[in-house]
Amino acid sequence: MRAGSVVSVNAKLHTVTGRIPIDELTPRVPGGKFPAKAVVGEIVPFEATVFREGHDKLGALLTLTAPDGSEYEHPMELVAPGTDRFRAVVRMDAQGTWSWFVTAYHDEWATWMHDAEIKIGADVDSELMLQIGAGLLKRVGGQEHVIALLEDRTRPAKDRWQAASSDAVAAAVAQRPPISLVTRSAEQRLGVERERAGVGAWYEFFPRSEGAKRTAEGWVSGTFATAAKRLPAVASMGFDVVYLPPIHPIGTTNRKGPNNTLTTVDGDPGSPWAIGAAEGGHDAVHPDLGTIDDFAAFVREAGERGLEIAMDLALQASPDHPWVREHPEWFTTLPDGSIAYAENPPKKYQDIYPINFDNAPESLAAEVLRIVEQWIRLGVQIFRVDNPHTKPVWFWEWLIRVVNDRHPDVVFLAEAFTRPAMMQTLGKVGFQQSYTYFTWRNTKTELEEYLREVSGRQADWFRPNFWVNTPDILTEYLQFGGVPAYKIRAAIAAIACPSWGMYTGYELIENVARPGAEENIDNEKYEYKDRSWTKPPTGRITIEPYITMLNGIRAAHPAIAQPRGTHVHASDDEAILVFSKHIEGRFTENGEPDTVIVVVNVDPHSARQTLIHLDMEAIGLDATDGFTAHDLVTGESWEWGRDNYVRLDSFVEPAHIVRVQRKSR
Amino acid sequence: MRAGSVVSVNAKLHTVTGRIPIDELTPRVPGGKFPAKAVVGEIVPFEATVFREGHDKLGALLTLTAPDGSEYEHPMELVAPGTDRFRAVVRMDAQGTWSWFVTAYHDEWATWMHDAEIKIGADVDSELMLQIGAGLLKRVGGQEHVIALLEDRTRPAKDRWQAASSDAVAAAVAQRPPISLVTRSAEQRLGVERERAGVGAWYEFFPRSEGAKRTAEGWVSGTFATAAKRLPAVASMGFDVVYLPPIHPIGTTNRKGPNNTLTTVDGDPGSPWAIGAAEGGHDAVHPDLGTIDDFAAFVREAGERGLEIAMDLALQASPDHPWVREHPEWFTTLPDGSIAYAENPPKKYQDIYPINFDNAPESLAAEVLRIVEQWIRLGVQIFRVDNPHTKPVWFWEWLIRVVNDRHPDVVFLAEAFTRPAMMQTLGKVGFQQSYTYFTWRNTKTELEEYLREVSGRQADWFRPNFWVNTPDILTEYLQFGGVPAYKIRAAIAAIACPSWGMYTGYELIENVARPGAEENIDNEKYEYKDRSWTKPPTGRITIEPYITMLNGIRAAHPAIAQPRGTHVHASDDEAILVFSKHIEGRFTENGEPDTVIVVVNVDPHSARQTLIHLDMEAIGLDATDGFTAHDLVTGESWEWGRDNYVRLDSFVEPAHIVRVQRKSR
Repeated sequence: MRAGSVVSVNAKLHTVTGRIPIDELTPRVPGGKFPAKAVVGEIVPFEATVFREGHDKLGALLTLTAPDGSEYEHPMELVAPGTDRFRAVVRMDAQGTWSWFVTAYHDEWATWMHDAEIKIGADVDSELMLQIGAGLLKRVGGQEHVIALLEDRTRPAKDRWQAASSDAVAAAVAQRPPISLVTRSAEQRLGVERERAGVGAWYEFFPRSEGAKRTAEGWVSGTFATAAKRLPAVASMGFDVVYLPPIHPIGTTNRKGPNNTLTTVDGDPGSPWAIGAAEGGHDAVHPDLGTIDDFAAFVREAGERGLEIAMDLALQASPDHPWVREHPEWFTTLPDGSIAYAENPPKKYQDIYPINFDNAPESLAAEVLRIVEQWIRLGVQIFRVDNPHTKPVWFWEWLIRVVNDRHPDVVFLAEAFTRPAMMQTLGKVGFQQSYTYFTWRNTKTELEEYLREVSGRQADWFRPNFWVNTPDILTEYLQFGGVPAYKIRAAIAAIACPSWGMYTGYELIENVARPGAEENIDNEKYEYKDRSWTKPPTGRITIEPYITMLNGIRAAHPAIAQPRGTHVHASDDEAILVFSKHIEGRFTENGEPDTVIVVVNVDPHSARQTLIHLDMEAIGLDATDGFTAHDLVTGESWEWGRDNYVRLDSFVEPAHIVRVQRKSR
Repeated sequence: MRAGSVVSVNAKLHTVTGRIPIDELTPRVPGGKFPAKAVVGEIVPFEATVFREGHDKLGALLTLTAPDGSEYEHPMELVAPGTDRFRAVVRMDAQGTWSWFVTAYHDEWATWMHDAEIKIGADVDSELMLQIGAGLLKRVGGQEHVIALLEDRTRPAKDRWQAASSDAVAAAVAQRPPISLVTRSAEQRLGVERERAGVGAWYEFFPRSEGAKRTAEGWVSGTFATAAKRLPAVASMGFDVVYLPPIHPIGTTNRKGPNNTLTTVDGDPGSPWAIGAAEGGHDAVHPDLGTIDDFAAFVREAGERGLEIAMDLALQASPDHPWVREHPEWFTTLPDGSIAYAENPPKKYQDIYPINFDNAPESLAAEVLRIVEQWIRLGVQIFRVDNPHTKPVWFWEWLIRVVNDRHPDVVFLAEAFTRPAMMQTLGKVGFQQSYTYFTWRNTKTELEEYLREVSGRQADWFRPNFWVNTPDILTEYLQFGGVPAYKIRAAIAAIACPSWGMYTGYELIENVARPGAEENIDNEKYEYKDRSWTKPPTGRITIEPYITMLNGIRAAHPAIAQPRGTHVHASDDEAILVFSKHIEGRFTENGEPDTVIVVVNVDPHSARQTLIHLDMEAIGLDATDGFTAHDLVTGESWEWGRDNYVRLDSFVEPAHIVRVQRKSR
């Protein structure tokens, strides 16, 4: 900004308020203790409330400093009359910590243009106004002929004013605007992470099931080598990340049996979350799966297919974990000398000891860091953290900061299904993304509210990952909704949220729950499952092509990767949900706006017809515009406008996923 | 708090997050740069979001440090399940800056009580649980017999647990609770000002009109001495503050004539806001009103009647102001050598020069401070600041801070009718109270929304003063609503808002506007008015008794003085507004809850009957409770419950103002 020095009047009179107040800067994490978040490619609205006394015009400028120190300036525009809210929208193009601030200033030329037009038009103080204009132009430099005209009293005032309002003068003024009262906001921080920190399609499978076989002698576990054979199919479905439940040795003490029973028979593999045995703990791999080198080879093979491996980080130990013997201080020893089990009284989880973070926090923290560093060395860049909300928040703040300082590409996903305060705070202190309540938001109203919530102000610090199912969650909606329910949930998750995920078997509509539980029967958590993907049972339903289509739409439409701006539109039916993702043309590679509209019947048991009412402004159109709606599900096309008839039969196709093709003008 | 030292683990590992997260502390001014606000007698909800990992119980404690350094502790309670929001409600009883913080801790006894009840009930780990309980009690001290019982393995476990759950043990534990993981929040500030900073009934009159007489030679101005004769009537109507438009010498250059005309005739007094003449500026009094000593006597006489004088602080100057000659640097000099008039192009206000705060801010600030100090010495403790939003915000932050540091009782009221960002910020930087949009909120829906807004989070920094009219504002609602409109607006303002105000003539239903303007015709701003209060024109309507009644209700009901907790209730009629003010018995002198319910027909042209539906919890009752409703307007009484029939004829009485008399239990 070519300006005088920042006004110092307030420093002398010791006020907090600058010459022009600049307030409520966003993106920002409430409390101001942690930087706001974005990812590379994210389109970020930088905003501030800027206002001043009286009627004179002000201007606001965003100054961004990239991680490499280069500076960029973006003029900010008033968002809406009366709000005093100014905005500049920028696509972040480099990873690292950016800093930014807002400069506000008295825009003397705009003030003069406004006043001169009115006053000279009314012939009030015309000569004086022209004299002021000439003075301003002298500060701009050049424009000698215009200055001469402004000062030429032989000519009519209106002609002289006309000369000053030319495009050429405007361009010169824009280069060196005459400004004053320059005020600078405090500096803000924005941490820009790699794209995968906020955008990706996740697929979860149990490596021991992939290639597992039941033989006459009992089950033979799958291995990293057999599991790797599944990777091409996962990649061709369009997923980006494969998340593995824990791969470590599993304790034998109080091992859980099939369907979460307390008794086991020989060969029952136990829950992978009961980590640690004689063979090792969090730094070891289960011998049935292979060796550490086999794991590294699996990670490499995934990488060659464009897949990243997300590893589970579950900080708890089976009673057989080496930590129990070597570091009893990392657990809670009871007055009777025993170590406390995990429990939620009266329930006890006797295959697990929870960690105590208060006895020896520093040595424990060092050990966890050592383990995480080991897996990072072996190629892991993503950790899915099991139940972070049962460990102290400070620990995650510390771990994520220290790891990211050394390895800025490492991503942590919080598996925190708990109250809002904890979930939001885990995002604020550093978790790159989080599981969400999406799984339990099934009605139109619930979904409308939730989509608005996660794509609103929260996007500054909380990145949702919409999982449609997990080994722990098979909702009633899925249990009783049949194939339509599975399509509906996948379509909403994949298009509404930059990150979504599914647990294997979803594509096969595995919808039978263990009686009394909200999870699959014969759960892979406790037993092997023969995932003979190469030979699917004849006649078995699969929605694999539907999933592949959804991930294909994600890849083709950059709007879907944006965390903000999910817009909910109206429909006249209580089960027809309508939402859009939209980005303006200046942010796309081909200069065309990218707009996807989802119209979905969230009732899996019905066919419905209704009118939908699009908020045209939210998708970059005028109220009277028309466009061609290409349904990416069926290949059909329609001519749409603001109000459109739709009919969605859940038994056929429950959702339109519409690409908007604008009319050429 | 009798506790170990605050946990320092995070200091060692350098985290921002404490052992137990404590966040979103309120009351608080967003941004954290200015202290939150309260007045003496205000009931303040101190809140924080406090949560931790896992299932163990936590406790939260509010520690308040009074201005004299004494410390008070208040246990905080969970506001609602799932919110993690803890609250302690305290009536502030001393003026000055309070500091406060929240301490969170692991409540070991509560955790044990919860777990022991469940586990011993299910006979799980009973012996171990009793051993843990005994250990906790040993830390409490005393209770030897209970400890012996807990350790007596010859007795049934349930009996031993019973012994530990007695009231006596609970009392001992409350004295010395066994706690750990003690975490302290950052310290917060709360500025507690005198009551009048937030609570008061204001009355505005022009002293020159009070006692003014039209004689054969023209008008004779009222004086401080004649105006003082009006004070007893104002006091007996129950007002607390008399606000005077500027009392300084008035310029003659471009003086405004009657009804805002640009021409005057001899004897036209001019607008009091055109401050400054040969006789002096902001530090002088208009010679027609008397002398500085007369003014001081007027202030003293008001004080003897329980009235404070609010003085106008209008920082602008007539062209005849001594500043113009002595300090041209405090104005804007144009290129032609003239001084800029106030203007909003193409309109010019040629009787006024606005102040320029940028040429010589320090000398100007010193001069304004000198003037304010002079009037404070003469007994003024309240300043009504004219158009603060046309001066830089930093100036007010500076002035109010400097003045209040020396004179903590001084109150500044902002006459800022402008966009929300400026109005809110003036409150944040220090203005004790502000004019509001109330004047233009006339429908039920508008009022419901506005009452919720001003009594919500904003109460931490923005204190509304509901004026029903001013010399500048005579709304269409008043112009065309007759006597009912005047009663409706006064009843809402006086009961809903801790501060309300009216400009003289309101009680006489002066509702004729100057054509094309939203203000009274023959406005006192530009001419004398014969306010012959002692001899009212025969047959003239007056609602003086109604006003007196309203102020009487205010005096009798402390709930009305509270800025928070205005609760809006439902009615089935689109014009019947229902709201209540309520405080719990522990905050009243007699230990009884204080509850006032207003049911008002905001349509001044109708009689309406409908059902109203009270949110009984909001007034401290159960859904099925009944109470006696005493209408303080008519003296009638009814038996009311949750749902009640009302009939309100605006032409008779548009409002019920109900005192709630609870049934004795």
